[in-house]
Order: sequence, then structure tokens, then C-alpha cells
Amino acid sequence: MRRVWWPAAFSLASAMAGAGELQDDLRARRARVMDAIGPDGMLVHWSAPVRVYSRDVDYEYRQDSDMLYLTGIDQEGTALVLLPGNKTKKSILFVSDADPRREHREGHLLTKPEAQEASGVDEVRLASELDGFLTSLMNRQPIGERRAEYTGEYDAFFDALKAGKARLALVFGRRPGVKDELPRAFEFAERMRQRVPGLSVTDATDTVWGLRQVKTAYERAALQRSTDISADAHRAAMRATKPDRFEYEVEAALEKVYLERGAPSWGYPSIVGSGPNATILHYNRSTRRMKAGELLLIDAAAFHGGMTADITRSWPVSGKYSKEQAELWRLVLAAQEAGMKAAVAGNRTADVEKAAEEVVKAGLLNLGLVTDASSKQHRTWYTHGICHWIGLDVHDVGDYRRPLEPGMAFVIEPGLYIREAALDALEDTPENRAFKEKVKPAVAKYRDIGVRVEDSFLLTETGLVRLSARVPRTLEEIEAFMAGRD
Amino acid sequence: MRRVWWPAAFSLASAMAGAGELQDDLRARRARVMDAIGPDGMLVHWSAPVRVYSRDVDYEYRQDSDMLYLTGIDQEGTALVLLPGNKTKKSILFVSDADPRREHREGHLLTKPEAQEASGVDEVRLASELDGFLTSLMNRQPIGERRAEYTGEYDAFFDALKAGKARLALVFGRRPGVKDELPRAFEFAERMRQRVPGLSVTDATDTVWGLRQVKTAYERAALQRSTDISADAHRAAMRATKPDRFEYEVEAALEKVYLERGAPSWGYPSIVGSGPNATILHYNRSTRRMKAGELLLIDAAAFHGGMTADITRSWPVSGKYSKEQAELWRLVLAAQEAGMKAAVAGNRTADVEKAAEEVVKAGLLNLGLVTDASSKQHRTWYTHGICHWIGLDVHDVGDYRRPLEPGMAFVIEPGLYIREAALDALEDTPENRAFKEKVKPAVAKYRDIGVRVEDSFLLTETGLVRLSARVPRTLEEIEAFMAGRD
Repeated sequence: MRRVWWPAAFSLASAMAGAGELQDDLRARRARVMDAIGPDGMLVHWSAPVRVYSRDVDYEYRQDSDMLYLTGIDQEGTALVLLPGNKTKKSILFVSDADPRREHREGHLLTKPEAQEASGVDEVRLASELDGFLTSLMNRQPIGERRAEYTGEYDAFFDALKAGKARLALVFGRRPGVKDELPRAFEFAERMRQRVPGLSVTDATDTVWGLRQVKTAYERAALQRSTDISADAHRAAMRATKPDRFEYEVEAALEKVYLERGAPSWGYPSIVGSGPNATILHYNRSTRRMKAGELLLIDAAAFHGGMTADITRSWPVSGKYSKEQAELWRLVLAAQEAGMKAAVAGNRTADVEKAAEEVVKAGLLNLGLVTDASSKQHRTWYTHGICHWIGLDVHDVGDYRRPLEPGMAFVIEPGLYIREAALDALEDTPENRAFKEKVKPAVAKYRDIGVRVEDSFLLTETGLVRLSARVPRTLEEIEAFMAGRD
Repeated sequence: MRRVWWPAAFSLASAMAGAGELQDDLRARRARVMDAIGPDGMLVHWSAPVRVYSRDVDYEYRQDSDMLYLTGIDQEGTALVLLPGNKTKKSILFVSDADPRREHREGHLLTKPEAQEASGVDEVRLASELDGFLTSLMNRQPIGERRAEYTGEYDAFFDALKAGKARLALVFGRRPGVKDELPRAFEFAERMRQRVPGLSVTDATDTVWGLRQVKTAYERAALQRSTDISADAHRAAMRATKPDRFEYEVEAALEKVYLERGAPSWGYPSIVGSGPNATILHYNRSTRRMKAGELLLIDAAAFHGGMTADITRSWPVSGKYSKEQAELWRLVLAAQEAGMKAAVAGNRTADVEKAAEEVVKAGLLNLGLVTDASSKQHRTWYTHGICHWIGLDVHDVGDYRRPLEPGMAFVIEPGLYIREAALDALEDTPENRAFKEKVKPAVAKYRDIGVRVEDSFLLTETGLVRLSARVPRTLEEIEAFMAGRD
């Protein structure tokens, strides 16, 4: 179902009064990165590679998120150079050369004026010029001009090179393992170090990712819009849920909403798990026939306008929660509520995690699923963290140690998964043997139930906003929605 | 939308009376490969790697097609070893080790008995054993047994090693370019050459791909079933086509059929192009609003039960072809019909191509789009070959020089794309200038029309079968279908 994503975002701009134009936002993002790099620095960044599906068929192209963040360009074979010390051409984009044969096969390639208009950069050049451009630059030669005509455009960087102060800034991102091959940025850094004596290399990851962590007005509006599509998809999935249907039939109803609303893709593969499949965190087969009396857990969201929300609900296949399902659903809701209360500016996500965890511990003790609320027993059923950033990526970049501030977007997603296999996997100690023996009746009662409630939130200047409020959430809301279908 | 694909295929078996069980078919495929390799040989083959979508989210997994062909196993981290000279354990599958933590996150991993039942191999071992297994084998040591207990299982291969006759057979597939990194099979071959003096390496590509080129009874039934789903998706797309709708809305109707019928994925990204977008062969944005009077070209098919069909139609957005659209549509249909007549056992696909091309040349002359039917002028509008094999891959493996025989599956897909840019791209010669001048009025008349008719065919013992016959195809059929919607 996936297409290149950006056109949807373009049409967003006009639809979002007050949110500002995308191109203004892109310019402001680059300006902040350039402030951090300084006039002695140069940033180089590349588009993502195309990924093979099978033989000569590729997966639909997914642009590198930082390239999207800095340029809005979703075309492969693109590179961005930022030279903050330049006089007028501080941002230079390199796009694929025109190629009529390729364009007849694959579609239109952005022309220079189109790329300039879409990204708002100062100058657009052809991708075939990039190597020569960098070589001239490093040799302190005018680029594409005679020496006599040189205007001093690159003087700040040339002076930095001459003084041995020039810095190459790259968004290195995740460090590769000792045995991994060197990713592109690391290889490029190595080649440049070898070829340009005196050039130092700096890591711009924290700069770019730090900016991405706090959403602009444009991004906030785009995230709300993307979340709305995902919320409507969840509602369609609730409507399509019926005993004896296959999980994939509900997935079809869900993802059809993405496509018909212009979202080019999911933000992550849909998780549609009924009965025991709800206890598998990233279950992705969707091949089971669901039965009356079971829960269906759906964790799914679209990628739209460059933003991915993240939403999970567990609803009853036949419309009514059983007593045990209701108890677990109410418990994760209460944990989420506690987390929401702790999600205030100045706190950290660890405070959100802690507040929810206390509720879960007490609740599990109450249900007989743990025997000691001060121990780590609850981790048998409560198996993952509940906060992550959202944005261009579903697990978006950001520093967890940074206090919450307005503009940060994240999920709160407590879940409980009652799997007998989790007991079997416990280390064989006297404490664990006693624990297993005592919780046996409760585990039998709640066995194979998986519940997770996950909403997408934005912290604003006036408090926490639940972006996914449109999806029924409490037991009463969900049962009423299921009863009112058709 | 993509999930792992195999469960759909399992449910196929029972649905296809007379087609035989999948596991029997898999065993027969391996037996034929082993006959070709011989008792001195060993084949090693691996599953495909997981591909990154963005950050920590991967694309849905697509298994290597040859691994699917030989084992039916869609799980990553799998390896197959064939030792045709072994006494009883001729086929040995290596699957991921059990891992409760991983399985809670990603889902169930096949147990040894499950992998054995699904694939019908002689023995299943754990992936962690593979390196030790190969090292023991190359040292002519019993594997997992004391020497005193060795049963002589591997004697044929051990003897071949001792005699310097042992051969390592790998499905190398496409040769990498001079500057490319060595793909896995090539790297493995290099390491084995270095470590096992006397071992020779042979290429099993033609053996495996030659088998894949002729479909078994099981594969024929699976391909028909996959084609049926794609055909129904095209019908749904025709129903959803209306002036002023966006291309992506029609795509939603199309792909919903894949999902709700249990197809885990497209076989290739859907092409949904209206108006001038129909002249881009692999247009993949689907973001345009279609207008009354235009054609909509859809080229799309599901991946189901391990098989991908390939179907294209160009239908009128408002239900009726204009005179010019009708002329071009009738011409590609006539070309396809001519190709079908040439698609008989003993002919080659070149004969099919040639028969269709003659019709196209004469037709274009008749419409004024070429001035000389004996020249290559027609290639300005008729820009691609019209035959390719189908099967596990949409552009399936196979030798084009091999004469057609029953069991071969392929498409015939003539297309015409009237783009003014195609004239601009012609070399500036006196002949081309004259050609451009003469066809100008006809090009103005047919400008921006793109038509392609593509059906999936199977050559059987009794002749050519149009697997995609369920999709309206002639002008009359399509107009009647469009009139009868709602």
C-alpha cells in the first residue's frame, strides 16, 4: 500500500490555518541546526537507500527521517549540505539529474525549481555535482565559477579550513556494533579525515534529534491530523470486529481508512491479535479466526504528513468484556491515568513510568497475580516500558533524561499479558517457586488475556492533550460504541 | 499491510482438491534439485535478511523466493542444507533457537517438529548449530555422535571430500557488479574455498530457477487462486472509480480485497495512474484527483499462497472510452490477441513479442502515430517488452531462450504511452525531424493517453489459459461492467 509520502504533507499546509507553511518551518529548522554548527562547520546528510523486497521489486521508498525533517524532500538520491558561514547559499540541496528514460519508468523527478520551492533551500544542484563540489570546497576553490569571478561566498569555511578549524558535522545516529559494517556517515567521515588534514568531525545527532524532540506549530497540527486518521481507522476496526471473522478482515477495514484518507503507509506494521495473540507484543500474522468471548488487541497507526501516532486498544470481540477482561482493562486504564497525571512539564518520563507502575503493582496484588507489591513480580505480566516519543518515527528520537516541556509528543501505553509461559521462564529459585504456587489460581483465571491501552499525547503550554481522544477508551465507551454499531 | 505470507498457503492445501499437498510438492522439488547436484555435492541456502523501514521499525518480512520454493518456510534466520549422498538425512533445515523473550515480543518461532511438518525435510536442527555442523562435515567428523556410534550417514560426501571431488552448490543468482559488495552466497563460497582445499564451488542457479520456470500442479492451482484474488481486486477498483475521486481512494478499494481475502501483501506496489500518470510505467504516488474523460490505468496484483499474478487494465473514469482512447485500447488488445496466438508450446517468448509488435506497428501507422511501419519509430510509444515469467516473483526467474512448454506461466502486456516528451528525447537527426513533423497532429490527438492490457497466462497441456479471465477486458466488457455498477 505504500507510496512516497510527501504530497499528502503538501496538501496539509493549506488545510492547517495558523500552523504556518511547511517551507517556513523547514527554513526555521535548518536555521537552528546552522546556529548550532557555526560558521566553521559544514553539515552533510543523505537520503535513505532503496530497500529490496524480492528480486527486482523494491519496497516502497521510505525517506530518512532527518532528511525529511531538514528538507521535506522524499526523493531518493538526495543530499543536503549546510554551510552556515556562507554569505547567501547556506543550504544547498543536491537532487537526481533529469533522466527522461528513468522518468518514463519511475515517474517525475523533481526539477531544480521544484526542489527549491518544496524545500525552501538557498540553492539546488544536481546529485552528479556533489563529489566535485566537495572536492572543490576542500581545496578552497570557487565552485562553478572562474577564480576572477569568485564572490567570497565560501570565505568563512575556506578560512576555517585554512586555520585548521573547519568541522564536518554529520548526523551519525546509532553507533554500529563492533562487528557491523560502517554505515554511510561513518564511512564518509573516515574518507574525509583521510583526505582533508586538519578537518575535525563532529556529531550533529544531538542537535538534530534534540530539535525533533520538541514539535513546532506545524508539526503539532500535522501530528493531530495524522492521529485523527489513525483514530478513525480504529473506529472502523471496532465496527468490523465480529466473532468468527479472521484478524486480517479487521485489518483490511483498518488500513482501508489509511489509504482512502491519503496516508501513504502505516507508521509501523499493524498488530491485530485476538485471544492469546494479544499477549504477543508485535504479533504480525493476523491469520487467526477470532472467537466470541475473546479480546482483540489492535496497535496501529498511519504515517501521514510525515507524522506517526501510536494507538492501542483491546476490545471484546462480541462487544462485552468478561469480568476478568474488565478487571484487567480497568487496571491498565488506571495506570495510564496515573501516568497522565505525572506527565507535566519539568517531570521526566521516568516519573510517568513510576506513577503507572505503582498502580499496576497494587492492582495486580489485588487480583492475586502478584503476592508482593514491593518486589519485581509484576514484571512477569507488565513486560515493557510505557513511554516513547512519537513524530517522524513511531519510536521517535529524543533524550529520555530531558525534562518534559511543551511541544514534546509521546505515548503512555501500559499493558498486561497473562502468559503461563512467563511463569515457566522464571529462574528456578525458592522465592519464584513460592510465587508460582500462590498465583496459580489467578493465572488460570486470567490466562491468555492481553490488554494494552495506548494513547498519543502532546504536552502543550496549557497541559497534556490526548491527541487520540476520538477512539473509545473506557470500558463504558467501548461497550457503548460496540453496541451502537451498524 | 504486509504480514508474513505462509499461513495463507497452508490453508490453500485443503482448498485445492487434486493439486496435492504442499509438503509432497516441496519434497519433489528438493528431490529434483538433489538429482542435479549428485552425491558428491552439498547445497547450502539461506533465508532473506530483514530490511529496515526507518529506525527500529522493519518492513514486513519477505522470505527469499528460492528458500520458499525449497522449504516453504517463511521464518527469518533459516538455512537449508541438502546432502544428496546422505543415507537418510538428505535435507536438513536449520531454524532459530527457541527464545521465550523474543517470542513474547515477535511471536511464535517454529519448533523443530513444526518446521519438519511444514517443510517435510528429513531433519531439523537449530540455527546455532549450523557453523559447527559445517565445520564437522568439512573435517569428515560424525556430527553430534561419538565416532564409535557413527552410522555412515555422511559417507558419500566424506568420500567425495577425501577424493577431492566434493562440490559446494549455491544459488548465486544475479552476479554483483564490479564495485558492489559481495552478496552472502559469494562471500560464503570464498570462505569455504579458503578453508577446504580441494572443494569446488558450482552454481545451482540454473537448476533451481529452471525448475521454478515450470509450475507443478500445486503451483498452478495456487497461481490461479492468487490471480482470482487480484482479479476481484480489479473489479472492486472498477466499481470504485468515479470522476473527482483521488487515485488513492481507488487503491484503497483494490488493496482492501487483498487483505480481506487473506493475501498478506501486494506482489508489487500498486500502480494507479489517471490521465497523464498512465504514461508513467511504475507510477506509485496515487495522489492525483482523476477527471471525467480520462483513463485510469491500474497495474496491480496480490501475493498469495506464494504466487503473484500480474494484471493491468486502462478503463475510462466516467465509464465510456472516447474515440481516441477506444482506438488505442483496441490496438493493444489486438496486439495481445496476436501474442496469445503465438504463445504455443515450442515457440519462444520472442515469437510472442514479435507477433504483437507487428500488430502494433501496423496499428500505429493506421492511426498516424508512425510514418514507417518497417522502422523503429513505434518504439517511441511502445516502450517495453511484453512477456515475463510470473510465479513466486512478479518478474519470475526463467530462461527466455527456452522454448515454451506446459507449466510455464507468463504475462502478455502490450502498452502504448503517447508522451510528447518521448518525441523531445529522440536524437536530432533528419529522419527524426521529419518523423516528428509528420506525426504532430496525431500526437496532439492522442496526447497523454496511456493504455496497457496485461493478463496472466498459464500454458497447459491443452493450450493457453488466461488465468485473469475474470477481469473485464474488451471495450464492450469494460463499458458494460462500468455501466452495471452500484
